[in-house]
Amino acid sequence: MKAKIVITPKKAVLDPQGKTVQNALAYLGYQGVSAVHVGKYLEVELTGTDAAAARQALDEACHRFLSNPVIEDYRLEIVE
Amino acid sequence: MKAKIVITPKKAVLDPQGKTVQNALAYLGYQGVSAVHVGKYLEVELTGTDAAAARQALDEACHRFLSNPVIEDYRLEIVE
Repeated sequence: MKAKIVITPKKAVLDPQGKTVQNALAYLGYQGVSAVHVGKYLEVELTGTDAAAARQALDEACHRFLSNPVIEDYRLEIVE
Repeated sequence: MKAKIVITPKKAVLDPQGKTVQNALAYLGYQGVSAVHVGKYLEVELTGTDAAAARQALDEACHRFLSNPVIEDYRLEIVE
């Protein structure tokens, strides 16, 4: 079983890394990019088989430790 | 239109950030985690409507600039 976690800055929060990537893309000639948001991606490999328990544990871990809930949102997905 | 890009270290490459997260999860009492891989997530908002052209341009950008193809893999997905 595997969990995929995407952590992104909240829309209201300044994202200088995204802005930098956007400017770099424009500089390199890639047109039509209106915004870029840069976040983190975590893939967690799990030994258990109980998807509901894994979701609950990881949801808590995301909130407590993997993301900063003040400035970041996260999406958690359990696969397989 | 939006593009979602996930950049992960190749499986053969050492991932110290993932190892650190794995150790921290174990230390905090989260059992059953066999591996963690940490990567980057980019969300690119596009003004155009031609998905095929956008995919081609971003695929090139990923290869040239957004990822390091020596040590990283990327997945590109165009949505909407």
